[in-house]
Amino acid sequence: MGKRIVIIGGVAAGPKAACRVKRCLPDAEVTIIDQDSLISYGGCGIPYYISGDVADEKELRSTSFHMLRDEYFFIKTKGITTLTSTRALAIDRKNKTVEILDLKTAEKSHLGYDTLLLATGSQPVALAIPGSNADGVFTISDLHKAVAIKERLGRGQISKAVVIGGGAIGIEMAEAFTDLWGIETALVEYKEQLLPRIIDWPLAVILQKHLRDHNVGVYLGESAEEIVVDQGKAVAVRTSKRNLEADIVVMAVGVKPRSELARDAGLLVSQAGGIVVNTRMQTSDPNIYAAGDCVEIAHLVSGKRFVAPFGSMANKEGRVAADNIAGIPSMFKGGVGSFILKAFELSIGAVGLSLEVAREEGFDVDFSLSSPSDRAHFYPGQDIICLSLLFDRRTRKVLGFQGTGPLNDALSARIDAAAVALSSGATIDDLANVEMAYSPPFSTAIDPLNAAAYVADNLCDGRMRQMRMEEFFDWMADPSSHPDWQVLDVRHEKQAAPFVEKFGPAIWLSLPYDQVRDRYSLLPLDKKLIIFCNAGSRSYEIQVFLDFVGVTNNTVLPGGFNVIRRMGPEWLPVR
Amino acid sequence: MGKRIVIIGGVAAGPKAACRVKRCLPDAEVTIIDQDSLISYGGCGIPYYISGDVADEKELRSTSFHMLRDEYFFIKTKGITTLTSTRALAIDRKNKTVEILDLKTAEKSHLGYDTLLLATGSQPVALAIPGSNADGVFTISDLHKAVAIKERLGRGQISKAVVIGGGAIGIEMAEAFTDLWGIETALVEYKEQLLPRIIDWPLAVILQKHLRDHNVGVYLGESAEEIVVDQGKAVAVRTSKRNLEADIVVMAVGVKPRSELARDAGLLVSQAGGIVVNTRMQTSDPNIYAAGDCVEIAHLVSGKRFVAPFGSMANKEGRVAADNIAGIPSMFKGGVGSFILKAFELSIGAVGLSLEVAREEGFDVDFSLSSPSDRAHFYPGQDIICLSLLFDRRTRKVLGFQGTGPLNDALSARIDAAAVALSSGATIDDLANVEMAYSPPFSTAIDPLNAAAYVADNLCDGRMRQMRMEEFFDWMADPSSHPDWQVLDVRHEKQAAPFVEKFGPAIWLSLPYDQVRDRYSLLPLDKKLIIFCNAGSRSYEIQVFLDFVGVTNNTVLPGGFNVIRRMGPEWLPVR
Repeated sequence: MGKRIVIIGGVAAGPKAACRVKRCLPDAEVTIIDQDSLISYGGCGIPYYISGDVADEKELRSTSFHMLRDEYFFIKTKGITTLTSTRALAIDRKNKTVEILDLKTAEKSHLGYDTLLLATGSQPVALAIPGSNADGVFTISDLHKAVAIKERLGRGQISKAVVIGGGAIGIEMAEAFTDLWGIETALVEYKEQLLPRIIDWPLAVILQKHLRDHNVGVYLGESAEEIVVDQGKAVAVRTSKRNLEADIVVMAVGVKPRSELARDAGLLVSQAGGIVVNTRMQTSDPNIYAAGDCVEIAHLVSGKRFVAPFGSMANKEGRVAADNIAGIPSMFKGGVGSFILKAFELSIGAVGLSLEVAREEGFDVDFSLSSPSDRAHFYPGQDIICLSLLFDRRTRKVLGFQGTGPLNDALSARIDAAAVALSSGATIDDLANVEMAYSPPFSTAIDPLNAAAYVADNLCDGRMRQMRMEEFFDWMADPSSHPDWQVLDVRHEKQAAPFVEKFGPAIWLSLPYDQVRDRYSLLPLDKKLIIFCNAGSRSYEIQVFLDFVGVTNNTVLPGGFNVIRRMGPEWLPVR
Repeated sequence: MGKRIVIIGGVAAGPKAACRVKRCLPDAEVTIIDQDSLISYGGCGIPYYISGDVADEKELRSTSFHMLRDEYFFIKTKGITTLTSTRALAIDRKNKTVEILDLKTAEKSHLGYDTLLLATGSQPVALAIPGSNADGVFTISDLHKAVAIKERLGRGQISKAVVIGGGAIGIEMAEAFTDLWGIETALVEYKEQLLPRIIDWPLAVILQKHLRDHNVGVYLGESAEEIVVDQGKAVAVRTSKRNLEADIVVMAVGVKPRSELARDAGLLVSQAGGIVVNTRMQTSDPNIYAAGDCVEIAHLVSGKRFVAPFGSMANKEGRVAADNIAGIPSMFKGGVGSFILKAFELSIGAVGLSLEVAREEGFDVDFSLSSPSDRAHFYPGQDIICLSLLFDRRTRKVLGFQGTGPLNDALSARIDAAAVALSSGATIDDLANVEMAYSPPFSTAIDPLNAAAYVADNLCDGRMRQMRMEEFFDWMADPSSHPDWQVLDVRHEKQAAPFVEKFGPAIWLSLPYDQVRDRYSLLPLDKKLIIFCNAGSRSYEIQVFLDFVGVTNNTVLPGGFNVIRRMGPEWLPVR
């Protein structure tokens, strides 16, 4: 009999590692143990199961060739033993055994191992507020919870939902409730924006508007303080600002690594709770590996360590762990936090560091905001994507990249390409010349990713100066706060007209792009000109010209009307 | 007055460089000269203009904000002078002048420069066959030709078309004729496959089937030997095998750099005709730069130099040239040949080296063929993409990546990510851990690109052995040629049944995936088993198991039924 390999955790990293190690060491005795009865499922698919896009939870547990990944499947097709409904209680590292509890029979026993893999995953953070244990309050932690939620939806007794947490799962759940079940849904986030620390403000506002346009009530800067309970059932969520009625409450305020077993066994666990592993996914005990949501990995941009609770990472880490367990040298260098999300008809994604995180990490961060077409502007069906490329002014290193786009793969394609570049420490100049495949139905001759790097290059070299969108919005809310500011709208006169009409030419001046060279002498020299166009590129060109002719008190509003229209501020005269 | 910068060529690299250099040096005197009256257009959009997807040729010459990029535009918005209908006759490097001819007045004059940029582009290769000058024979070389073709189509007098050349432009033109004009179209390629040297055989066959399914007559391995002319008009194309009637003939047999002007001026020009430049896009004369289709650049995979006639490269090269002209140090390191093409409902793309080219370059090349889902297999609308990842067995370096997919951005996303990786010399192991953003609506937990690298890893390490698709097809066409071969179909019995019925169990044996471990002893030991499934992954798993139990005379058919179904060979019992 070959090596005894025990794997604790049967969702993503565990089964991946088990299958890989069994293929590499066919004589190994591989056992997966999991406290759940359901294993090897696509947890990221839960919101789509709840919405109804995916009809049956079994689809989330099935292979692409429609076999259910249950105990039978693992033993018959992989030769892997799965002990489901079995909890790992403790690891005896000296004797190399795991104490396990059969949850069906309540019997305890010991399982010997030569190599152990911890793939214990993560668990939802539970808000410690009154009422959080009431009937009708859920976290999205496993398939059973998902089935329970869907059953309630199916019974037709839910007309109001509150989702606590404006992260990815919260947003996906809000969409599932609203879009396919027609439930009146409120989304509560205690920070001032959605997707905090992942997406920067202008793009988060685009998402927020999109959710509101699709009838999700978005409440920002409000903490959930109590689940109001009536006869044992949740009936409302009381926030710091209001009462939101609810027949169902979903808490999606983040996850934390499940690392108690590792800690209790004396393995090194970080302050953030992630099991510490080396690039071979080996813990501080060389006979114990760990992979998936329960570990900390290196962030390839910040150099720090972070927990990356993504199914995609779990699979990669599981494979690397399996390789090393099987004696195949293999390294997992770390991650860059690639992220993509569907929200109704919007895609939103990011990779690397957000502005807030980059600042905390001490980078001299700036960013280019742009709004190019996702394919040739003359090609039918083209749409605008809004992109922000973050870079370090000192080193020209790319720190992050994020965007919003229509519901196709255009944004995800750019996030992926940027992710590859970020993994190898790309600079602005590397991204400027990244060779995206071009054909009008798929992209633009100057790809959005290249163009974003061009803007960053101009900013970094000081050829371009820009105003922050936040600053511009504050001013538009109260133009008298800066009477010496004036918008110079270089778009077509017809596009500028409603703005000039609403704000008056002292605030909103129209001078079309092709007339600036002839008529710049009419421009006021005592005002700071905020140059404005659709995407920001004409504005930059005009800035360079105005600087040249001595009208230097000017700045560019990056991303332009394309971004602002999608942010949808109330002061906009046109939608 | 500032620096005098003269740019010869006004389509892509020329205008890009002109605009960039003018922004960086606002006091420069920038002049573009072009022998054509129409400049700064999206040449890659011509097939979509001809098809009607793009209504007016002006859209190809307009900005995203709908301004026509003509002489007025360049002087008014950019401060750039354009001399259209003006031919550059000769360069006097000693006196730093260009002799030009005004094609409207036939007047010659001289234009002085401090720095010259050659952006002379490429021209279609003309087949020197009888009749090639007849009325109705076109190349796709400029907008005038495109307008002339569309006029003929609009008159409704064209019912049959022949396109000579199975490259990208030929395929796009064939689609334009067939799909939107309902013209009976024949596509003639003298090599045995479409997209030769770009796409490898199995994927080229998928394209070929797709074109035939959409009523394009595809004739491979046939050379066009004569344009049959009647009363001055083309009426047919005579190939080495047949006569194909034609009211219109399009020759799209490739392009060659326009480098005569450079060569005549004594600049270094390669044997292939590309102007030789350094990484600053500087020719052998430090005062003369060159960019776009007319230059040779470094291939970042092969290390050799190549001509990359893509509008996207022209823009990047033009920007780098402009930077250096303006005194901003900037480098263009080379390219990897990213390529994407729409053909009806199919996308097909490639990056890096094809099998044929990699072999010629002396690599120890192998490839993994796979056929994963483009997004979570449980997500509505998912589809299969077919991928081939080429690698060097000695160094594990990735040499190329190519694929076919449905008409969305899924394939192009993977080509782009691979392009970034190839640009920095990625190995299989780098691609295995590339962090593609995952969410079920956009991708799979194990991304197709990661999965392709996994397969390559298994091949490279000798854990997986595969049969070439060509070899398998040859055998299926005549199973008696190898009576000792047998397919082991591990798919569901219902899927295998039509094959077993057609070929008999001696050729096509069904043993489902989940029964192999129990029943492998029934397998013949005197046959070479060709393990067959939908995508190749079950086959690999079964191979590992059979090897382990001593049934070692086996091989995997990579990509499986997903690929074969799309190739559509005649012997298939099901479609």
